[in-house]
Amino acid sequence: MTFRIAVLNGPNLNLLGQREPSIYGHRTLADIERMVREEATRLEVGISFSQTNHEGALIDAIQQLPGRAEGLILNAGAYTHTSLAIRDALLGVKMPFVEVHLSNLFARERRRQKSLFADLAVGLVTGFGGEGYVLALRGLQRHLSAARSQG
Amino acid sequence: MTFRIAVLNGPNLNLLGQREPSIYGHRTLADIERMVREEATRLEVGISFSQTNHEGALIDAIQQLPGRAEGLILNAGAYTHTSLAIRDALLGVKMPFVEVHLSNLFARERRRQKSLFADLAVGLVTGFGGEGYVLALRGLQRHLSAARSQG
Amino acid sequence: MTFRIAVLNGPNLNLLGQREPSIYGHRTLADIERMVREEATRLEVGISFSQTNHEGALIDAIQQLPGRAEGLILNAGAYTHTSLAIRDALLGVKMPFVEVHLSNLFARERRRQKSLFADLAVGLVTGFGGEGYVLALRGLQRHLSAARSQG
Amino acid sequence: MTFRIAVLNGPNLNLLGQREPSIYGHRTLADIERMVREEATRLEVGISFSQTNHEGALIDAIQQLPGRAEGLILNAGAYTHTSLAIRDALLGVKMPFVEVHLSNLFARERRRQKSLFADLAVGLVTGFGGEGYVLALRGLQRHLSAARSQG
Amino acid sequence: MTFRIAVLNGPNLNLLGQREPSIYGHRTLADIERMVREEATRLEVGISFSQTNHEGALIDAIQQLPGRAEGLILNAGAYTHTSLAIRDALLGVKMPFVEVHLSNLFARERRRQKSLFADLAVGLVTGFGGEGYVLALRGLQRHLSAARSQG
Amino acid sequence: MTFRIAVLNGPNLNLLGQREPSIYGHRTLADIERMVREEATRLEVGISFSQTNHEGALIDAIQQLPGRAEGLILNAGAYTHTSLAIRDALLGVKMPFVEVHLSNLFARERRRQKSLFADLAVGLVTGFGGEGYVLALRGLQRHLSAARSQG
Amino acid sequence: MTFRIAVLNGPNLNLLGQREPSIYGHRTLADIERMVREEATRLEVGISFSQTNHEGALIDAIQQLPGRAEGLILNAGAYTHTSLAIRDALLGVKMPFVEVHLSNLFARERRRQKSLFADLAVGLVTGFGGEGYVLALRGLQRHLSAARSQG
Amino acid sequence: MTFRIAVLNGPNLNLLGQREPSIYGHRTLADIERMVREEATRLEVGISFSQTNHEGALIDAIQQLPGRAEGLILNAGAYTHTSLAIRDALLGVKMPFVEVHLSNLFARERRRQKSLFADLAVGLVTGFGGEGYVLALRGLQRHLSAARSQG
Amino acid sequence: MTFRIAVLNGPNLNLLGQREPSIYGHRTLADIERMVREEATRLEVGISFSQTNHEGALIDAIQQLPGRAEGLILNAGAYTHTSLAIRDALLGVKMPFVEVHLSNLFARERRRQKSLFADLAVGLVTGFGGEGYVLALRGLQRHLSAARSQG
Amino acid sequence: MTFRIAVLNGPNLNLLGQREPSIYGHRTLADIERMVREEATRLEVGISFSQTNHEGALIDAIQQLPGRAEGLILNAGAYTHTSLAIRDALLGVKMPFVEVHLSNLFARERRRQKSLFADLAVGLVTGFGGEGYVLALRGLQRHLSAARSQG
Amino acid sequence: MTFRIAVLNGPNLNLLGQREPSIYGHRTLADIERMVREEATRLEVGISFSQTNHEGALIDAIQQLPGRAEGLILNAGAYTHTSLAIRDALLGVKMPFVEVHLSNLFARERRRQKSLFADLAVGLVTGFGGEGYVLALRGLQRHLSAARSQG
Amino acid sequence: MTFRIAVLNGPNLNLLGQREPSIYGHRTLADIERMVREEATRLEVGISFSQTNHEGALIDAIQQLPGRAEGLILNAGAYTHTSLAIRDALLGVKMPFVEVHLSNLFARERRRQKSLFADLAVGLVTGFGGEGYVLALRGLQRHLSAARSQG
Repeated sequence: MTFRIAVLNGPNLNLLGQREPSIYGHRTLADIERMVREEATRLEVGISFSQTNHEGALIDAIQQLPGRAEGLILNAGAYTHTSLAIRDALLGVKMPFVEVHLSNLFARERRRQKSLFADLAVGLVTGFGGEGYVLALRGLQRHLSAARSQG
Repeated sequence: MTFRIAVLNGPNLNLLGQREPSIYGHRTLADIERMVREEATRLEVGISFSQTNHEGALIDAIQQLPGRAEGLILNAGAYTHTSLAIRDALLGVKMPFVEVHLSNLFARERRRQKSLFADLAVGLVTGFGGEGYVLALRGLQRHLSAARSQG
Repeated sequence: MTFRIAVLNGPNLNLLGQREPSIYGHRTLADIERMVREEATRLEVGISFSQTNHEGALIDAIQQLPGRAEGLILNAGAYTHTSLAIRDALLGVKMPFVEVHLSNLFARERRRQKSLFADLAVGLVTGFGGEGYVLALRGLQRHLSAARSQG
Repeated sequence: MTFRIAVLNGPNLNLLGQREPSIYGHRTLADIERMVREEATRLEVGISFSQTNHEGALIDAIQQLPGRAEGLILNAGAYTHTSLAIRDALLGVKMPFVEVHLSNLFARERRRQKSLFADLAVGLVTGFGGEGYVLALRGLQRHLSAARSQG
Repeated sequence: MTFRIAVLNGPNLNLLGQREPSIYGHRTLADIERMVREEATRLEVGISFSQTNHEGALIDAIQQLPGRAEGLILNAGAYTHTSLAIRDALLGVKMPFVEVHLSNLFARERRRQKSLFADLAVGLVTGFGGEGYVLALRGLQRHLSAARSQG
Repeated sequence: MTFRIAVLNGPNLNLLGQREPSIYGHRTLADIERMVREEATRLEVGISFSQTNHEGALIDAIQQLPGRAEGLILNAGAYTHTSLAIRDALLGVKMPFVEVHLSNLFARERRRQKSLFADLAVGLVTGFGGEGYVLALRGLQRHLSAARSQG
Repeated sequence: MTFRIAVLNGPNLNLLGQREPSIYGHRTLADIERMVREEATRLEVGISFSQTNHEGALIDAIQQLPGRAEGLILNAGAYTHTSLAIRDALLGVKMPFVEVHLSNLFARERRRQKSLFADLAVGLVTGFGGEGYVLALRGLQRHLSAARSQG
Repeated sequence: MTFRIAVLNGPNLNLLGQREPSIYGHRTLADIERMVREEATRLEVGISFSQTNHEGALIDAIQQLPGRAEGLILNAGAYTHTSLAIRDALLGVKMPFVEVHLSNLFARERRRQKSLFADLAVGLVTGFGGEGYVLALRGLQRHLSAARSQG
Repeated sequence: MTFRIAVLNGPNLNLLGQREPSIYGHRTLADIERMVREEATRLEVGISFSQTNHEGALIDAIQQLPGRAEGLILNAGAYTHTSLAIRDALLGVKMPFVEVHLSNLFARERRRQKSLFADLAVGLVTGFGGEGYVLALRGLQRHLSAARSQG
Repeated sequence: MTFRIAVLNGPNLNLLGQREPSIYGHRTLADIERMVREEATRLEVGISFSQTNHEGALIDAIQQLPGRAEGLILNAGAYTHTSLAIRDALLGVKMPFVEVHLSNLFARERRRQKSLFADLAVGLVTGFGGEGYVLALRGLQRHLSAARSQG
Repeated sequence: MTFRIAVLNGPNLNLLGQREPSIYGHRTLADIERMVREEATRLEVGISFSQTNHEGALIDAIQQLPGRAEGLILNAGAYTHTSLAIRDALLGVKMPFVEVHLSNLFARERRRQKSLFADLAVGLVTGFGGEGYVLALRGLQRHLSAARSQG
Repeated sequence: MTFRIAVLNGPNLNLLGQREPSIYGHRTLADIERMVREEATRLEVGISFSQTNHEGALIDAIQQLPGRAEGLILNAGAYTHTSLAIRDALLGVKMPFVEVHLSNLFARERRRQKSLFADLAVGLVTGFGGEGYVLALRGLQRHLSAARSQG
C-alpha cells in the first residue's frame, strides 16, 4: 500500500441519489464509495471514507488526519462557500488535498461558485458526478508519488 | 394518529423567556412545547419537539425526518439568515415545512428580514409569539391532510 | 360569545377554486367560510364573513367595524399592494387585524411581496391556502384575549 | 351564432363624444356600439356591450363572463394603468380577450403607455378610434375560430 | 337660486372627528355640511353634499354633474394621490371645481403633497379645516358669477 | 370691531387689471380692496390695505403690525419665491397670516410653485383671483376667533 | 418727435467712471446720457433718462411708462440676475424694451451670465461700454418704426 | 475727530431684543448704538448709525459714504446671503468695511454660513453679540489709522 | 475564590503549536491552559477551560455560563468573523467578556480584522499569543472587582 | 485685576513683520504684545503672552492654563488646520477662548479656511492684523464679565 | 532585572482624571505609573515612564530606546491617528512595542479607530483603562522572554 | 567662501544606516555630512549641517537662517507630507532651498508621494541616496551664483 487517503464528505452528501437528482445524479454515496475503493485497489492506495453534516465534525476529522493519511479528498458541500473555520483547519494540518464537487460549480448559481478552500488545494475536480471522486483519487495519488520521489 | 410532525428549534431559542424579553416575550420554550403538544393531541398528530444550537444537528435532524415524520415546523433562529447548508438539507428531503418566527419580521432590523428558506416553505407565520407554533402546527396538519386526500 | 371578528375578503377571492388553482388551490371561498365558522364555534367567537371586488366597499366595511367587531381578518387581494385609501381606513378605525394571504408571498413575483398594511398588523399568515384564515382567527382570538386580560 | 363576445368599457368611456374630442374623437359610445353590432351581425357573433366607472364592477363583470361568452373585448380606460385587481380577474377567468384603446397609447404621455393587462391578451388594437372595436371584434372572432378548429 | 354646487367627499372623510384628530380636527362631516348649507343659503346657492369611499362612485358622481350642477367642490382624500381615472372624469366633464384639503398640505409628509387634479382646478384651499369648504364654496360661487357675467 | 387685519400686497399687484389679464383677471387692486372692506364690515373686522413694489417696504410693514393688527393677509408677489428677508420678518413678528395668490400656483411654471413662507402660514388660498382675498379674510377671522376662544 | 424712449438704469450704475474701471470703463453715467441725447436728437426721439439703486423703484418706474413712452432701454445691473419682480413688471406693461449691459456678459463670471428678462426683450446689446446705449437706442427706434408701419 | 465711520444695519435688525432672543440675545439696536457711540467718543471717531429694511436703501447709503465717511461697519442681515447688488456697491465705493454678525456663524444652519461680501472685507467679527460692533469699530479705526500713516 | 471565569476556545485552537507556527507560535493549548490556571491561582479565581470546533457547542457553552461563572474569556477563532448565532448567545446571557486573539489582527488579511462581537466586549487583547489569555484573565478580574465594589 | 487672560501664538507668528507682509502686515509680534498689554491695563486684565513653533509646547501651555488664567486668546497658525491633539487639549481644559487670525480667512486659499477649533470657541476675529488681538481681548473680557455676573 | 521597558505617553495623557472622565475614567497618569511600577517590581523589570505633549519628543525618545530598553509600551494619544513621523521612528528602531488605549476603540467615533502604528506592534490592548498598561507590561515582558529564549 | 549653505535634516534621518537599509541604504548621516563637506570645500561653500526630530525645531532653524546662510538644503523626512507649518516658515524666510529625498518618492507608497514644500523649492533631488545631498549642493551653488550675477 503506497498511500493512505481520506475522503471526507460534508453536509447533505449522504442524501445523494435522493436529493435533487437532476443536479446531483442518481448515484448514492455508497455507490461512490465502492467506485473509489475499486480504483484504490488498482492504485494500491488505502482509503478511509466518511460523511458528516457538522462543520465542527469536518474540522475534527481534518485535524486528525496527520499520522493517519497522506492525502485528502474533500467535498465540503455548502460549507465550501461559508466556512472560514474549515479553511483554518486545512491551513493547520498542511495536508495535500483535492477539492471535489459533483456538479459543475461554474454552471451553478452565483453563491455556489466561490470556494473558500480551492486556493489551498492541489487541484479541483468539478462536474463529473461521482466519477469525479475517482479522478480526484487518481490525481492525488500521482501528486503524492511525484512529491515522494522528489523528496 | 394521523401525521407525525417534527418541531425543530435552532440556536438560542432555549433561552426564551430570559433573552431580550422586550422582543421575544416571557414564554419559555417548554411553555411553547406544552401548547404545541396540547394542540397536537386535539389534532391527533404525533409531535417530536427539539432544540439545538448546532447547525449540523439541525441538518442531521432534517435528514432523518423522512420515515419518521410527514411534516416539519422550523424556527432556525439566526441560522435562518446565514445557513446555506440547512437550505440544502430542506431541498434534499423535500419535506413540507412551515417557517415560524416569534416576532413580526416586518418590525425588525434589516438583517433579520431575509430568510434563506422561506421560498421553499408551505407558509410562514410571523408575529404571534409562541402561539405562532400552534398556528403553524394546525396549518401544516391541514396542508398534509389536503395533500394526502389528493394523493 | 367572547369576541366578534370580521373577515373581509377583497377582489377576486370569490373566484377561489377556479382561479389559478396551481397557486390558490381548489377550495372555494364558501369552503373557507365554513371552516372559519366551525373554528369560531369552537373558540366561541362570533364571525361575519364577506367578500367584495370593490375597493370602496372594503373601506365601507372597515369603517363600520367599530361597535360590531373587536377584531379583523383581512385579505385585501391585489389592493394590498396599491390602496392608500384602505390604509387610511385601517388607521382611522384603529382595530387590531391580522393580514392573510393564500399563497406564499415569498414565492411570488416581486410586486406581490410588498404590503401597504403589514406594518400596522398584529401578525401575518401566508401560504396556507384557506386554512390560513383559521390560523389567523385563532391567532387573533389569542391576541384579543391577552389584550383583554392585560386591560 | 358562432360565438358570444362581451365588450366591457371602463371609466369615462360613457363620456365619449364630449370628453376631449381632440384626443378621443366625436363618436359616442352608442355610435361605437352600433358599429360593433353591425359587424357582429356580419360575423354571426353575439354581442353584449356595457360600460362602468367602477373598478370593482369591471371585476364583477369579468368574473361573470364564463358560461355567458367565449371572448372579451376590453377597454379599461385609466384602470389599464393602475389596476392589479383587474389583472387578477383576467387571470382568474382565463378568457381570451383583446385590449382596445381609442387613441394611440404610444403617442400619449408616459403614464398612459403602460398596460397591466396587455401581456395576457390575445392582442392589442390602439389608435383607430371607435373603429378599433370593430377590428378587435374581427380579430377575436378569427382567433376563437382557429382555437376551436384546433381543439 | 343662482347656482347649483355639488360637494363631493372621498374615502374616509365620513370618519372625520374620530380619525387622527391631531391632524384632521374634531369637526364631523355633518358639522361641515351644516356650515356649507348655511353659507349656501346666504349665497342663494343650491347644494348637494355627499361622501363615498368608492373611486367609481366619485367618477359616476362627477360625470352626472353636467345639467345638475354648475360647479364642484372636491375633497378626494387619498384618491387625490392615486386616481388617474378621477382625473379623466374631471377632464371629461370640464366642470369648474375647487380642490379642498383640511390640513395644510405644506406641513404633511411627502406622499400627501402631490395632487393629481390641482392643475385642473379653479383654485385650491388648504389648511383651514372644515372652514375651508365654506371658503371654497364662496370662491366657486364668485368664480361662476364672474364667468356667467362674462358669457 | 373684533379684529384688525392687515392686507399687504407686493410688487406689481398695483398693475392688476392691466397686467397679463389672461392669468390675473380684469379686477384692479382697488376693486379687491373694496371687496375686502365690504366683507370686513360684515365680519366686523378692521382692515388696513396697502401695496408696494419694494421688498424693504414689505418688511417695514410686517414689522409694524404688532399692536396694530392681530392677523395678516399676505400676497408677496414674486418676492414669495426669493426673499429670505421677508421670511425673517414673519419669523420676527410671529403674527398669524394667510398666504394668497391670485392665479393657481399649480398651473404655473415651476419657479412660481415654491413659496418661502407657506410652511409658516395658517393656510393658503390660491387661484380665485381677487376673491381669494375675501376667502382669506374669512378664513383668518375664523382662525383668530377660534384661537381667542381657546385662549 | 417720432417716439418717446425711457432709459432706466439700475443699481450702482451711478458709480460709473469710478467703479471697477477695468471692467466698466471711465465714462460716467452723465457721459452716457449726453451720448444718448445726441443720438436721440439725430433720430428725432424724445428721451427720459434715470437711475435708481432700488429694485422697487425700478418696478415703479417701469409701471409708469405706459402713456409716457413707447419704448424702454433697460440696464438693471445686478438685479438682472435675481429679480423675478422686475420681470413681472416688464410682463405687466408689455412695452418693447432693449436690454443693455456695459461689459460682455459672456466674458463675466458665471453668476453674471443669466438674465431673467432677456427672453422678453426686443434685443440685447452687451459688451460695448457706454456706446451700447447708443446702439440700443438706434435698434429700438428702428424696431418701433417697423412696428408702427406694420400697424 | 480722526475718522468718520458709518454703521449700516440691514433688514430685521431693528427687531433686536424681540426677534428670536435665544439666537440674537436681548439687547436692542438702540443699546448697541449707545455702546458704539460711547466707544467712538473714546476713540475720537465720528459715527453715523442707521438701519433699513430696504436693499436699495443700503446700496444708496453705501454709495453716499465716500466723502462722508472713511470706513463702514456692515451687518446686512439676510441680504448677506442673497444680494449681488450690495456686493456691487461695495466693489464700487472701495471703502474699507468690517462685516459683523451677532451670532457665531459656525454654529448656525447652512444657508446662514455663506456671505457674499466677506472676501471683500477688512475683517469679520462673529459671535460676540452687540459687543461685536464695538470690536469692529475699534478694529476698523486701527485699520484706518494704519492705512493713513502708511499713505 | 473571588470569581469564576470561563475560557472558551473555538475552532482549530486545539491545533496550536502545529498550525501555522509562524503566525500562532509554538505553544499548545494545554500550555496556555496551564498558564491561565497558574495565574488564576494567584488571583484566586476559579477557571474552566475548554475548546471545541463546533459553533453550536460554543453557543451551548455560552448559554450555560450564568450561575457557573461571572465572566468569560472568548477566542472564537474563525467564527469571530461569521457567526451571528454566537452574537445572539452573548446578547442572551449578558455576561461580561473579553475577546482574545493570538495573532495581531491589524497585521492579518482584511477578512480577519472585523469582529462580530467586539463592540459587546469589555475589551480586546490581540497579538500576544497564549500570553494574551493571561492578560485577558487579569483584565477581566480587575473589571469584575471594580464592578462589584461599585455595586 | 479682574481676569487673567493668556495669549498663545503658534508657529511662525514670531516672523511677523518679515513674513509675507502683503498678507500679514508689518507689525512684529512684540508690537502686538505691547498693544495687548496696553489694552489689558485699561481693562484691568492680567496678561501672559507667548509664542512657540512647537505643537507640543502649545499643548503644554494650554494644559497649564487652569488656575493661572480665566480665558485664552489663541492663534495657532498653521496648526489650526491640522492638530487633533490641540483640539484634545482645548477639550481637556474646558477654558473659554477666542480664536484670532491676522489675515481674512475668507480671502485665503481653501485649506486655510477650515479651523479644527472654531466650533468650540466663544467667537472668532479674523482679518484685523495685530489689532485683532486687542479686539479679541476686549470681546473675551466682556464675555467673562457677563458669565461671572450670571454665575 | 530581566528587561528594561519604556512607557511613553503622548499628548494630553497628563490630563487623565480631569479630561472627559466619562470616556477616560478618574485615574491619573501618576496612578497608572504606580500600578505599572508595582507590576514591574513583581516581574523584575526596569521601568522608565514618561509623558510628553511633543511629537518630536516622542520621536527622540523612541530613537534613544536602543541600548536603554528592550521594549516599549506606547500610548501616543491623538498622534496615533496623524503622525507618520512616529511611524518612521518605530520602523527605524525596530524595537518590540505594545500599543495601549484606555477606552475601547471599537466603541469610539470613526477618526479614533484608525491607528498608524498598530500593524507594526507586537499586540494591542484596548478598553481596560489604566489596567491596560499593566496588561501590556506583562504581555511585553513575556514576549521579550520568549524571544530571548529562542535567540 | 562664496556662499553659506545650511543643510537641515528632519525626523529619523539620524537613524540612517540602521533604519530600513533596503530602502535608505547603509550610509550614516555622518557619512553624508562628510561627503557634503568635501564637495563644499571644492565649491568653496560654507556648510552648516544639523538634524532634529522636532517639527517645531525645524521651524525654529529655518527662521534663523537669514543672515547666517544664503541657501538651504532640506530633507524634512515624514514632515514633508504633513507639515503646513514648515511650509509657512519657508514662505516666511523666502530663502532659496533645494528639497532632497534619499529614496525615489515616486516609487514609494502613495502617502510618501505628496510634498507640501516642493512647489516653493528651487529644485528637488530624489532617489540618489546620500549622493543626492551632493547633487543638491552643487545645484544650489549654481543657482545662487546665477542669481548673484543677475542681481
